[in-house]
Amino acid sequence: MSSNINNHDETIFNRLNNRLYSELRNILITRNYTNYAEGSVLIEFGDTKVICTATVDDNLPPFLKNKNVGWLTAEYAMLPRATHTRNKRDTIGNKPNSRGQEISRLIGRSLRSCIDLTKIPGKQIIIDCDVIQADGGTRTASITGGFIALYDAIQTLILAGAITENPIKHFIAAVSVGMVRGNLLLDLDYNEDSNCDMDMNLVMQESLSDLSIVEIQGAAEGAAGAMNKDTLNKLLDLAEVGIARLIQLQKHALEV
Amino acid sequence: MSSNINNHDETIFNRLNNRLYSELRNILITRNYTNYAEGSVLIEFGDTKVICTATVDDNLPPFLKNKNVGWLTAEYAMLPRATHTRNKRDTIGNKPNSRGQEISRLIGRSLRSCIDLTKIPGKQIIIDCDVIQADGGTRTASITGGFIALYDAIQTLILAGAITENPIKHFIAAVSVGMVRGNLLLDLDYNEDSNCDMDMNLVMQESLSDLSIVEIQGAAEGAAGAMNKDTLNKLLDLAEVGIARLIQLQKHALEV
Amino acid sequence: MSSNINNHDETIFNRLNNRLYSELRNILITRNYTNYAEGSVLIEFGDTKVICTATVDDNLPPFLKNKNVGWLTAEYAMLPRATHTRNKRDTIGNKPNSRGQEISRLIGRSLRSCIDLTKIPGKQIIIDCDVIQADGGTRTASITGGFIALYDAIQTLILAGAITENPIKHFIAAVSVGMVRGNLLLDLDYNEDSNCDMDMNLVMQESLSDLSIVEIQGAAEGAAGAMNKDTLNKLLDLAEVGIARLIQLQKHALEV
Amino acid sequence: MSSNINNHDETIFNRLNNRLYSELRNILITRNYTNYAEGSVLIEFGDTKVICTATVDDNLPPFLKNKNVGWLTAEYAMLPRATHTRNKRDTIGNKPNSRGQEISRLIGRSLRSCIDLTKIPGKQIIIDCDVIQADGGTRTASITGGFIALYDAIQTLILAGAITENPIKHFIAAVSVGMVRGNLLLDLDYNEDSNCDMDMNLVMQESLSDLSIVEIQGAAEGAAGAMNKDTLNKLLDLAEVGIARLIQLQKHALEV
Amino acid sequence: MSSNINNHDETIFNRLNNRLYSELRNILITRNYTNYAEGSVLIEFGDTKVICTATVDDNLPPFLKNKNVGWLTAEYAMLPRATHTRNKRDTIGNKPNSRGQEISRLIGRSLRSCIDLTKIPGKQIIIDCDVIQADGGTRTASITGGFIALYDAIQTLILAGAITENPIKHFIAAVSVGMVRGNLLLDLDYNEDSNCDMDMNLVMQESLSDLSIVEIQGAAEGAAGAMNKDTLNKLLDLAEVGIARLIQLQKHALEV
Amino acid sequence: MSSNINNHDETIFNRLNNRLYSELRNILITRNYTNYAEGSVLIEFGDTKVICTATVDDNLPPFLKNKNVGWLTAEYAMLPRATHTRNKRDTIGNKPNSRGQEISRLIGRSLRSCIDLTKIPGKQIIIDCDVIQADGGTRTASITGGFIALYDAIQTLILAGAITENPIKHFIAAVSVGMVRGNLLLDLDYNEDSNCDMDMNLVMQESLSDLSIVEIQGAAEGAAGAMNKDTLNKLLDLAEVGIARLIQLQKHALEV
Repeated sequence: MSSNINNHDETIFNRLNNRLYSELRNILITRNYTNYAEGSVLIEFGDTKVICTATVDDNLPPFLKNKNVGWLTAEYAMLPRATHTRNKRDTIGNKPNSRGQEISRLIGRSLRSCIDLTKIPGKQIIIDCDVIQADGGTRTASITGGFIALYDAIQTLILAGAITENPIKHFIAAVSVGMVRGNLLLDLDYNEDSNCDMDMNLVMQESLSDLSIVEIQGAAEGAAGAMNKDTLNKLLDLAEVGIARLIQLQKHALEV
Repeated sequence: MSSNINNHDETIFNRLNNRLYSELRNILITRNYTNYAEGSVLIEFGDTKVICTATVDDNLPPFLKNKNVGWLTAEYAMLPRATHTRNKRDTIGNKPNSRGQEISRLIGRSLRSCIDLTKIPGKQIIIDCDVIQADGGTRTASITGGFIALYDAIQTLILAGAITENPIKHFIAAVSVGMVRGNLLLDLDYNEDSNCDMDMNLVMQESLSDLSIVEIQGAAEGAAGAMNKDTLNKLLDLAEVGIARLIQLQKHALEV
Repeated sequence: MSSNINNHDETIFNRLNNRLYSELRNILITRNYTNYAEGSVLIEFGDTKVICTATVDDNLPPFLKNKNVGWLTAEYAMLPRATHTRNKRDTIGNKPNSRGQEISRLIGRSLRSCIDLTKIPGKQIIIDCDVIQADGGTRTASITGGFIALYDAIQTLILAGAITENPIKHFIAAVSVGMVRGNLLLDLDYNEDSNCDMDMNLVMQESLSDLSIVEIQGAAEGAAGAMNKDTLNKLLDLAEVGIARLIQLQKHALEV
Repeated sequence: MSSNINNHDETIFNRLNNRLYSELRNILITRNYTNYAEGSVLIEFGDTKVICTATVDDNLPPFLKNKNVGWLTAEYAMLPRATHTRNKRDTIGNKPNSRGQEISRLIGRSLRSCIDLTKIPGKQIIIDCDVIQADGGTRTASITGGFIALYDAIQTLILAGAITENPIKHFIAAVSVGMVRGNLLLDLDYNEDSNCDMDMNLVMQESLSDLSIVEIQGAAEGAAGAMNKDTLNKLLDLAEVGIARLIQLQKHALEV
Repeated sequence: MSSNINNHDETIFNRLNNRLYSELRNILITRNYTNYAEGSVLIEFGDTKVICTATVDDNLPPFLKNKNVGWLTAEYAMLPRATHTRNKRDTIGNKPNSRGQEISRLIGRSLRSCIDLTKIPGKQIIIDCDVIQADGGTRTASITGGFIALYDAIQTLILAGAITENPIKHFIAAVSVGMVRGNLLLDLDYNEDSNCDMDMNLVMQESLSDLSIVEIQGAAEGAAGAMNKDTLNKLLDLAEVGIARLIQLQKHALEV
Repeated sequence: MSSNINNHDETIFNRLNNRLYSELRNILITRNYTNYAEGSVLIEFGDTKVICTATVDDNLPPFLKNKNVGWLTAEYAMLPRATHTRNKRDTIGNKPNSRGQEISRLIGRSLRSCIDLTKIPGKQIIIDCDVIQADGGTRTASITGGFIALYDAIQTLILAGAITENPIKHFIAAVSVGMVRGNLLLDLDYNEDSNCDMDMNLVMQESLSDLSIVEIQGAAEGAAGAMNKDTLNKLLDLAEVGIARLIQLQKHALEV
């Protein structure tokens, strides 16, 4: 389909609160949200709210026993009433929640990409992302907030003398982009996501001069959403705008 | 053992923030905490924080199909890092979390006691209590906050014309009491709970002239904690003080 | 509600076999009921029949590894046709049986209260309570019978020289009390339990001069059952009568 | 291997209580063992004790919905301490108990063979076999006792006018045979079963003039136990002796 | 019932492709069917196709830890669409597949009977039998093909110097026999199996002079299928014909 | 990192069989591989072999009951020994296989994008993809082969008169691309995949004039693999070459 946002046949799409197509929602980051975790962050992308905690554990998964490295894993879940209708809990007696497991894997893979696991030997960091309220973009908020919880946990380890070198190699953040009735939008909320023909989640890392793609996951919703390379590149440009801003906000929150 | 709080052999026990033995922690109630549930409350008993939501569902459990009544059930869970060390999620591949199931049953039974189920025919109300941070008393906070979420959901139903008569018969609230080194304390925090010889959770309803016991659950921790009737009665007096105050706070929050 | 058993508005309630309100059902205790367990008891509270076995195991649960103590745990289950209608087994593919898990926890906690775990280092005692026939009071029969199985298992350990000191500190037993149409009854059968406004299970230990409460669990069935302190104290008196008799019967069975 | 029981190289094997090679253990049948099931039997093959109940249910499994037939199924389980060492319960969080499922299938298939399912349309009969004590032969005791529970349940249905014609076509019973150090034995106890080179379970039905095989399941334990046809036929003769006697005892218990 | 195949009342039964009653289907054996397993065989009994692989693992099951033996186990499963209608996968959220577990146990027990486990100390061999297409006889094809995969895996171990002595004691193979409308047939396909009154699976080992029975499992389908000893013996003769041929084909495939 | 394939620092990478960087492995498509499914295909990408079947079912998932549409879903699994080391089956008692569930979701989403579900009202098509041998690219082979099985199942429905209009809107196929030591490769095998810094799976549909992206999933393996837009576009070009060829092969196999 045509992805030309100036195409005369396309419908103008009005975003909530007159948000621009290339604008993020209001982003709020609250560090030390709970008391006990080594890192604990409440991150809000508009009405999407996720608690991200980082736990440092001295038990490695079996496949890493006796290797001189560490590990990072993530678990993602929603409160049952984070959404418009209630979801069953991912518990015994229910079916496995494969959407949740897929997102857990994405978060874990993304956050592992920014950390040198050989510098946390014998330690496993577990990032828990629990969605309090879901208004679209829960996985991108989880990665963006999870990075801050990870950063704080690493600082805790360094202050405690448990590790000597900072294993974090880059800042990373994540954002969604998508096409709604021919319009290319940044950071979709639930209503936009439900109406889009295609959406894509991007995880990027900050490099010396620019941003690089760590994860790209895009899917057409129905055949109408299949995109050509031109549209894909415009969406990447849009994502870069969002991620540059998110990393700026992460740094501000972390006071670095 | 002796439960005489004036006994010379007993140790004076200093509570955090100079709290009196018969004093509740700081209680905070935030209604409409999330956007989508028919009732949604954040309740805080000091550092214990629980999100309570009430969902109205048009599906009854099988054993009530085709009977002219409604139902209320509850589910209780903790975020993995609500506590000092991380708990595994109650999910497939893990063992069933029998503590959580027991508390879920207590919350459901307690809240069913204050509602006339024949007045919500065909409807099931689900109370979800998710502990964000656990510093003792999560089940009593869940019941006290769950009542408010229930109250709000009922108002929603009445406003929508879905039911005609208010099914709520009484206010209810819950509090813990316990004995720490011979001292009888109200509303124990985690540290007190870990050191107590005996603790008890009380759910009470407001009647015309006084409070009545809806649920009583007390357990000795070790044989030293077994209590005689005299101690039991003193603890009940203490609980009444707490519950009267909690119901006052519920009413203030609900503006009734 | 009024709990005055002399209240003129209350209905006289006739118990089966002209049983008095303060009378236990016929209690039968058969030791060595099966051959292989270290302790094995069939206990009958009227038509309620429970097989209680005690197993001594040399494997401790993970959280006690390398600590110089022992452990005691309990598992409670019913045969599918112990009841009027058949219950599904608590097996894979079915939902977790949270009622059974809750009772298992109660039995384990109660029996741990009467034993000094530091005197059975490295050993785990597992109490299995399997209900053959359920006519009310299965949890109180399980605790009362489970104590005897535990006692026999301890004797086995002492005779075998596996432990030197008797870790049992007190006798314990359990009984139910409840209110049916204003009448306060001891040791409810299924029919009484189904019709009661409120019931309570008490676990008590024998002390030098009297009985002390180890566990108290009471619940109103519907708002009508909420009880005031006066009723509670009358029910405690009733429970003491029952438990004193049960401990007498335990001692007679154990020939101590 | 040689199965000639007169072979000079074979060891004489002394059975407990001087039991003859072709003799059953002491068989005890107690009807109406529990109160609630439509059929309820305690069957004892020596120290092996199994409670068999028959439940009549008005729900058919999905694959039979709207067909004009009935169904019969069976479930077999052991109490955890029915055996010398404790077995884990077949419950959530444990591995599926495939031995128990295999035996459940055998019991169900065997009992279905003796009943005309078209004569109990819309009804499902569930046979629960719960082993109280296991000293070998639990599956054969289950089938033999399960038949009696089934018979009683059918009488209940006929008396209640729920069915008009007796659907039972034959008596059936089951027994084990095996070879221990060259000796061919009937009805093996646990000690014999543990030492046998080969064992076989036979389910037979009574026909007009003789017995016919409904199920035959034999397995060599180790290559030494593989049997030739001559041995097989001798074992069948032995099984016939046992089953004829068991059916006689079933009829005596049922007073037919 | 009468099993006399010459009985005038019996119906002549025409097999597919004019197969004789005592004839196997077309048997195809493809060794090294996949690349990675220590032994890998595709075996076809007519339209029944099973992939059998043998994996050598250095982890023993817990009950054999620190004993100087090895172990062999088997797992059997079907692709969902191996059959006329689709079967649900044996996966989390579905009910346990007890038929599959029963067959897994049969395959494991059969293959353990032909191997001296003391000659593979510390090693576990896992035989996976995955049915690609099911037209009757999947368990007999699995055992027959599994033996070849086992044989190849043992050769791999010997060539690698991991074991010094060949632990295989005998060739084994398996075949089904059954009675369809009075006719005794060898190696039943799905259509024959669905219409048979009785069927039996035989596993036999090759001895010096003849075949011996390792496993025998026969079941009547409905009371009409109960068999007398005469029929049983005729079926055993038929099975011997089939197994002798199958072992011949195994040897040809293995070039021994 | 630099993705310039002409960069002097990069290592020349030799592919197996002298395969060109932009060349697919040998692709083999066998239709009607098994007998019973409505569509059944064996697809081979070199040593990767997947059986894809399409089942037409008259039961829709609950969320589509009484809506005038159809549905398509997919399940992906591997035989335990499809890989170099044996994987545990995705079965009860094991942990959920989240990788398999994620791939199942990808296949289902991809194949739904090419079919108009309103044209198969009341029907559910289930695509089963079972990996016989895994040498990289199992998900892309599953989608490419699954499309053919779907196509054949649709033809079956049309021939049977069950649907009147062809619901398939486009051909789709899938392929992987990746970067190994700076070299951009098409259709990675297992060895290449294990050594790549970044890989990406593309699903594309055939449009009038070109190909459009239906799914894009790329992930850096370690921070070194993060890619810039230039590299991404070069990889897209490579994927287009592969997918154009795969669709040509699909059409040849389907004789359209």
